[in-house]
Amino acid sequence: MLYHSNTGNTKLMADLVAEGAASVPETEVRVRGVAEADADDLVWCDGVAVGSPTCMGTISWQMKRFWDETALPLWPKIEGKLGCAFSSSGGLAGGGELTCLALLVVLMNYGLLTFGIPDYVAPGRTLHYGAVCAGRPRDNADREACHRVGRRLAEWVQTLLLGRPEHAPQAAAYSRQI
Amino acid sequence: MLYHSNTGNTKLMADLVAEGAASVPETEVRVRGVAEADADDLVWCDGVAVGSPTCMGTISWQMKRFWDETALPLWPKIEGKLGCAFSSSGGLAGGGELTCLALLVVLMNYGLLTFGIPDYVAPGRTLHYGAVCAGRPRDNADREACHRVGRRLAEWVQTLLLGRPEHAPQAAAYSRQI
Amino acid sequence: MLYHSNTGNTKLMADLVAEGAASVPETEVRVRGVAEADADDLVWCDGVAVGSPTCMGTISWQMKRFWDETALPLWPKIEGKLGCAFSSSGGLAGGGELTCLALLVVLMNYGLLTFGIPDYVAPGRTLHYGAVCAGRPRDNADREACHRVGRRLAEWVQTLLLGRPEHAPQAAAYSRQI
Amino acid sequence: MLYHSNTGNTKLMADLVAEGAASVPETEVRVRGVAEADADDLVWCDGVAVGSPTCMGTISWQMKRFWDETALPLWPKIEGKLGCAFSSSGGLAGGGELTCLALLVVLMNYGLLTFGIPDYVAPGRTLHYGAVCAGRPRDNADREACHRVGRRLAEWVQTLLLGRPEHAPQAAAYSRQI
Repeated sequence: MLYHSNTGNTKLMADLVAEGAASVPETEVRVRGVAEADADDLVWCDGVAVGSPTCMGTISWQMKRFWDETALPLWPKIEGKLGCAFSSSGGLAGGGELTCLALLVVLMNYGLLTFGIPDYVAPGRTLHYGAVCAGRPRDNADREACHRVGRRLAEWVQTLLLGRPEHAPQAAAYSRQI
Repeated sequence: MLYHSNTGNTKLMADLVAEGAASVPETEVRVRGVAEADADDLVWCDGVAVGSPTCMGTISWQMKRFWDETALPLWPKIEGKLGCAFSSSGGLAGGGELTCLALLVVLMNYGLLTFGIPDYVAPGRTLHYGAVCAGRPRDNADREACHRVGRRLAEWVQTLLLGRPEHAPQAAAYSRQI
Repeated sequence: MLYHSNTGNTKLMADLVAEGAASVPETEVRVRGVAEADADDLVWCDGVAVGSPTCMGTISWQMKRFWDETALPLWPKIEGKLGCAFSSSGGLAGGGELTCLALLVVLMNYGLLTFGIPDYVAPGRTLHYGAVCAGRPRDNADREACHRVGRRLAEWVQTLLLGRPEHAPQAAAYSRQI
Repeated sequence: MLYHSNTGNTKLMADLVAEGAASVPETEVRVRGVAEADADDLVWCDGVAVGSPTCMGTISWQMKRFWDETALPLWPKIEGKLGCAFSSSGGLAGGGELTCLALLVVLMNYGLLTFGIPDYVAPGRTLHYGAVCAGRPRDNADREACHRVGRRLAEWVQTLLLGRPEHAPQAAAYSRQI
């Protein structure tokens, strides 16, 4: 879990994403702020959920610097890991989706695999390209969106990279379409 | 106002967008479904707000066909007109922003000018890249987002194309940041 | 391999993408034009490379209709398959990248996994978000970009879905950075 | 003209973009690197062409920091100015278009108007969403793409903001479709 947070909102999301990932058995999770993360964290992990505040419709400069500089020696040596995204924006329709997609573009540049999430977490609330909250996560739908993106990442890591198909989303016991 | 609607939700949005545009003095508005619109409607207008349901994260094929075929003889003869976008999606974080941006990409391909809308219409609700509703417009924030995108289009048309700077957004009497 | 072609250029690309995929051992490939493809083709495959001409900066309406209508009964039942994209555009900087990304957005909406391709196929020629040609594939770089996107798809399918890590890109014998 | 350049390639593009803008009569141009630019430069201008290297498929962190921090006091007070984009990428199909579009997203967030450019500058070379070069501008098509984006910006500024319709692209004496 790699995040940058200006106001603390994306940090709150990151903690929930981590909870979701950790809910998948045999999954070990590190939560790293962008200032403390280093390239070794990327080498260590099988999958990474990257969270940035929506800043002017896209990734914050602090998170971008991590990928431009800190992670640069790993380009494209981390190819084949899995990645996904989440973002806290000032308001809905304010660029949260665009920020998630921009994060996925960065991860794809490094050769990572990514994925969409068809699940609905509440009526009218989904997370197809990553979890988006307006401000901090406030209600159950916000929290479940964060959980879900972490959980899905861990499910795909277990299924595709670690050979444990019993953790595939298709085998999930929880409700995926509401 | 050019729209395609499968379920009626984008049609409801289109009517609100048209109301918003018509609220700017000296502005004449046509509302056209994609099946009845033709190239002459694009020639006639100074600005166009284009609405599509979010279908699999982007523009519906019906709306795309309009731009690929119906409007094709006008490429790029309508350069310099103004355009903006709106979309009804199945759920928030489900591609509504991406659909608006995809519509703007199509309009830019034709040489149109477009614009962002910094306004907030409610706490946590904005429309930076176009108005987005989950399903039909339900509450005041939804309705105001639709109104605002139409109004802003008409304001810019009046200001930039028709020489009436008294209609500039900067002169607006309504609240733009909440 | 699913493609739509107006002028034949995307069809030429599709054939090259198919060649690239078929170059990976134990890989069976179907090439389907959008008019002849059906939902069963999507069920049958483990991975799909989707090609569309760049039409006004994004997916052609014909290809979009396939995903809006033909494939709709499969949403999101094909989750976990792999997908990638390619596009022929009228000119470089004319929307080919945007079309590839839009195709990936559609695939992610269905729950597919996708991936970036860091490889360079010639100095100044890459295919990070899918293979792009201006017009028809003309030179070795064009052909290799098409080959590579098909090959990478097959490599990931073999590695991640079919349990044959000997086909991982990391084990590739060909040059990946030029 | 606001640019960030790591290798000097985007700087070379910026100089050409500036030349293109300055070729429109009555147009004054400032060229500013991101380290020396300040908010006053944005207040001063009527239009801004923003150039960033393509870094991992999107805006460099240095350019992003300018918009996240340096320009922040102006949000959204520079609404209604015009903006466009250019980018130097490591290779074609490597994210140059995505970077241009990401820059436009940032500008729209600030409330700027932007536009597409339908012109072709050589067979198979256009600049619909901004000028893109693989590496430094090398040939006439590269140079003309840079010129054209600056020229178009100045043409629209003169036409729409300064009341001089004789500078409209539609009145252009140069070849726009090749």
